[in-house]
Amino acid sequence: MNSSIIRYILGQVLKIEGILLLLPCLVAVWYREITGLSYFAVAVFCFLLGLLMTRRKPANHVFYMKEGCVATALSWIALSFFGCLPFVFSREIPSFTDALFETVSGFTTTGASILNDVEALSHCALFWRSFTHWIGGMGVLVFLLAIIPMSGGSNINLMRAESPGPSVGKLVPKMKSTARILYAIYFGMTITETVFLLAGKMPLFDALCTSFGTAGTGGFGILNDSMGSYSPYLQWVVTIFMILFGINFNAYYYMLYRNFKKALHMEEVRHYLLIILISTGIIFIGLVQQTMNIADALRHAAFQVASIITTTGFSTADFDLWSEAGKTVLVLLMFIGACAGSTGGGIKVSRITLLFKTIGKELNSYIHPKSIRKIKMEGKPVEHEVVRSINVYFITFMLLFCGSVFLVSLEGKDLITNFTAVAATINNIGPGLALVGPTQNFSIFHSFTKYVLIFDMLAGRLELFPLLTLFHPTIWKDFFTKRTKDLPK
Amino acid sequence: MNSSIIRYILGQVLKIEGILLLLPCLVAVWYREITGLSYFAVAVFCFLLGLLMTRRKPANHVFYMKEGCVATALSWIALSFFGCLPFVFSREIPSFTDALFETVSGFTTTGASILNDVEALSHCALFWRSFTHWIGGMGVLVFLLAIIPMSGGSNINLMRAESPGPSVGKLVPKMKSTARILYAIYFGMTITETVFLLAGKMPLFDALCTSFGTAGTGGFGILNDSMGSYSPYLQWVVTIFMILFGINFNAYYYMLYRNFKKALHMEEVRHYLLIILISTGIIFIGLVQQTMNIADALRHAAFQVASIITTTGFSTADFDLWSEAGKTVLVLLMFIGACAGSTGGGIKVSRITLLFKTIGKELNSYIHPKSIRKIKMEGKPVEHEVVRSINVYFITFMLLFCGSVFLVSLEGKDLITNFTAVAATINNIGPGLALVGPTQNFSIFHSFTKYVLIFDMLAGRLELFPLLTLFHPTIWKDFFTKRTKDLPK
Repeated sequence: MNSSIIRYILGQVLKIEGILLLLPCLVAVWYREITGLSYFAVAVFCFLLGLLMTRRKPANHVFYMKEGCVATALSWIALSFFGCLPFVFSREIPSFTDALFETVSGFTTTGASILNDVEALSHCALFWRSFTHWIGGMGVLVFLLAIIPMSGGSNINLMRAESPGPSVGKLVPKMKSTARILYAIYFGMTITETVFLLAGKMPLFDALCTSFGTAGTGGFGILNDSMGSYSPYLQWVVTIFMILFGINFNAYYYMLYRNFKKALHMEEVRHYLLIILISTGIIFIGLVQQTMNIADALRHAAFQVASIITTTGFSTADFDLWSEAGKTVLVLLMFIGACAGSTGGGIKVSRITLLFKTIGKELNSYIHPKSIRKIKMEGKPVEHEVVRSINVYFITFMLLFCGSVFLVSLEGKDLITNFTAVAATINNIGPGLALVGPTQNFSIFHSFTKYVLIFDMLAGRLELFPLLTLFHPTIWKDFFTKRTKDLPK
Repeated sequence: MNSSIIRYILGQVLKIEGILLLLPCLVAVWYREITGLSYFAVAVFCFLLGLLMTRRKPANHVFYMKEGCVATALSWIALSFFGCLPFVFSREIPSFTDALFETVSGFTTTGASILNDVEALSHCALFWRSFTHWIGGMGVLVFLLAIIPMSGGSNINLMRAESPGPSVGKLVPKMKSTARILYAIYFGMTITETVFLLAGKMPLFDALCTSFGTAGTGGFGILNDSMGSYSPYLQWVVTIFMILFGINFNAYYYMLYRNFKKALHMEEVRHYLLIILISTGIIFIGLVQQTMNIADALRHAAFQVASIITTTGFSTADFDLWSEAGKTVLVLLMFIGACAGSTGGGIKVSRITLLFKTIGKELNSYIHPKSIRKIKMEGKPVEHEVVRSINVYFITFMLLFCGSVFLVSLEGKDLITNFTAVAATINNIGPGLALVGPTQNFSIFHSFTKYVLIFDMLAGRLELFPLLTLFHPTIWKDFFTKRTKDLPK
C-alpha cells in the first residue's frame, strides 16, 4: 500500500483543520470569550502537526480504491479527534467520549447531541459545532481536491470514497474543477440562505449557524428547542433550503449552464420531490385531525418531512407526540434519505429507485426467463456493476443496522429508543423517537453505546465500505510491512 | 401460458383438500360434535369441484417457472379459501375475514390467531387448525408430486416455487422419489414426537395437535396459554423437536443413508445451532438477572429461542415482559429464521450466511480489486446466479416489510405493535410484541390490516416471488387470451 500518500493527505487535512479552527477563534475575539484560547491552541497544534506530516512529499501520487478508502476513513477520524479537543480543553464538554460524539455528530452532519443545555455553550463553541456541519456536508477531501494541486488521475478514488451516492460523476473532465464547482455552488447557496434569514430579522450569528446546519444537512440548533421559537417565515425559509440542499448538486450544475431540461429530467430529483409531497400530505392530514390549524399543520408537516428526508434533523415540534402513522412515515423517511450527490445522508433516493427497479427486473425474469432487459435510469441503461454494488450496499447497511441495534439494546433501553437511535445516527439525521426524540438527547447512553453510535455515524457518512476497509486485516499488515517503500511508478 | 396445467394442478389440490377435510370429520364423529357437518359439506364440495377441474387432462405437461409460480400461488389461495369455509359455516369464526386470516395463518405455518378464547372451539375445529400447519409445513404441492404421476421433467419448477430456501436440490434424480422421501421423514418425525409427548402423559388429542404445530413450525396452541401449562418435560420435548424441524431435511436424508460426515459438514446447520446456542445464552443470563431460577430460566430461554428462530411461535412465558436485550434478540431471530429446506420460515440461515459472505467479498474487492474469488459454501463455490437471487430476495423482503409496516400503521396502533405484527406474519412466526404479544392476538386489527397481514403470510411462506408474479400484468393477459390453446409440445 502507498502509505506515504496517505500520510501526506492526512497532513494536508490537519493543516486545513488548523486553519478552519481559527474561525471560532475570531468569534471568541468578537464576543470576548476566554474559551477561544483552547481553539487557538488546538489550531496551532493541528497546523504544526500537518506541516510535519507534509514536509516530505510522497514519491508517487498514484493510489487505488484501497488508498482512497483508508485515506478517507483516517482523515475523518483524525478530523473528529482533533476537532473535539477544544470542547474538552475549554471544559464545555469535559468528557472526551461526549466531546468526540458531539464532534463526529457535527462532521458527519448527524446533529445528534449529548448536551442537555445547548444555550449554556459559548458563542465560539456554538459556532464551531455548526461549522463542523458545513465542513462535513460537502466533504473535507473534496475541499482538499479543490485547493491543493495533486497530480495523477486516480484521485477520483478519494472523491468516490467520500461523496455520497452510488456512482460519482465528474461534472467536468478535471477533478479539481469539479470539486471547485461543487464548493462554489455550496458556498453560494449558504450565503443565499443567510441573506434570506437575515431578511426575516434573525440575528447574524443565528443566521450563520442555521445556514451551516441547513447546508450540511446537519441539524445542530443553537437553541434548546431547535427551530421551534423562530417565526413561521424563518421556518419556511429553512424548510425550503433543507429541500434544496437535499437535491443532487448536478442539477444545480446543469442549471448554471442553462441546461434546465437535463436538470428537470433527473429521475432521482423527481422521485425525491414526489416523496416529500406525499409524506407531507399524510402527516398534514394527521395533524389536522389532531385539531391543529391548517397553516400550522402544513408548516410543521413540511418542515419535519424536509428535515428528516434530507437527514438534517432540525425540529419545530415534538413529533414524538404525533400520530403513529405520522411517526411511521418519518421513520421510513429516515432510511430513504436525500438525493445522491447532495449533502444529505440515508440510503439515498437513487438507490431506493434502483432497488425497486431490481425487483421489477427479477419479477420480469420469472415471467419472461429469456428476456435480457437492462435496468434503466433516465432512459439510459445502468451498468451491471452499479446495480450490484447498490444491492451489496443495501445488504451491508441492513446487517450493520441490525448488529448496532443489538449492541445498543444490551444496556436495556426500550426497543423504539434503540431502533431510532441507530436509525438516526447511521442515516446521519439526529433526533429519533422516545428517549432520543426531538426534545431529548443522547446523553442518556453509556459510553459503550456512544462508541457504537459514533461508528454508525461515520459508517453512514462515508457510506460503509471506506470505514469497513479499516477492519480488513491485510490493510494493517500492508501498512506496517510496506511502510518504507512506495509502490513502483 | 399453459393454463390448462394450472387448472389441472388446482383441481388435484382441491381433491386432496377434500380428502384431508375428512380427518376433522372423523374427530367430530369421535367427540360427537355437530360442527363436523360443515367440514363434511366443504369436503364433498371441494372433492367434486376438484374432480370437475381434473376431468380433462392437460394436453401437455411441460411448464416453466412462470406456470410453477402461478400454480403455487393460486393453489395456496384456493387451499386457504376453501379451508376457511368450515369455520364460517359452523359459526365458530363467523367473520369471513377472520376465518380466512386464521386459515392462512394455519397453512402458512404462521400461527397468528384472531381468537380470544381458543379453548371454546370444538375438537374438530382445533384439529383442523393444527392440521393445516402440518399440511402447510412440507407443502401441498410437494405432497402432490409425491402421490400423483406427472410426466415431464420440469415439475421441479413446482417444488422450487413452494419449497423454502435459495436453491432446491433434488435428493435423488426423480422428483417423485425426492418428494416421497421428504414426506416419509416428515411423517416419521411427527409420529416420534407424538410418542414422546404421550410418554409425558399428554392426552392423545393434545399430543397430535402439538406435534402438527411443531412439525409444520406453525404454532397454533389448543390452550389459551399456548404451552405454558404443560410440564417441563413436555416443554423440553417440544423445544427439541422445534429445533429438529428447523434443520434442513437434507441432513436427515444424509443420516438415513449413514452419511453422517456429510450431514455434520452442512455449514447452514452448524450456523443455525450456533445461533440458537448464543441467543439462548444471552436470554438465559437476562432471565437469571430478573431473579428467575436457573432451571426455569434455561427452559424458557431455550423454548422461546427455538420457537422464534424456527418461526413456530409457541410460548411458555410472556416474553413481552422480558428484558429489552432479550426482546431485541428475539426480534432479530424472527428475521433470521430456520434452515432452508426445513419447514420453518424467515429469511433462512443459509441466506443470512451468504449475505455476510457477499459483504466479505465486496470488502475484499476494495482491497484487492483484481481478485476474482468466488463465494463458497461448504467448500464449494456458489453459483453467481444463486448469490444474485438471494440479494434480490433480501431487498424485496425488506421493501415489502417497510411497505407493510406503513400500511398497518395507518390504523394508528403503536410502532412496536405494527413492526412486530408484520415481522411475525411475513416470517410466519405468530406472536409479536406489545399488542400482538404472546398473551394477545390479532383480533384487534381492522379488516384492511388483516388482509395486508394475510398477504404478508402468503408472501413469506412462498418466499415472495411466486405470489408477486400474480401482480404482473402480463400474467393475467396471458391467462385470459391464451386460455384455450396449450403451448406447443
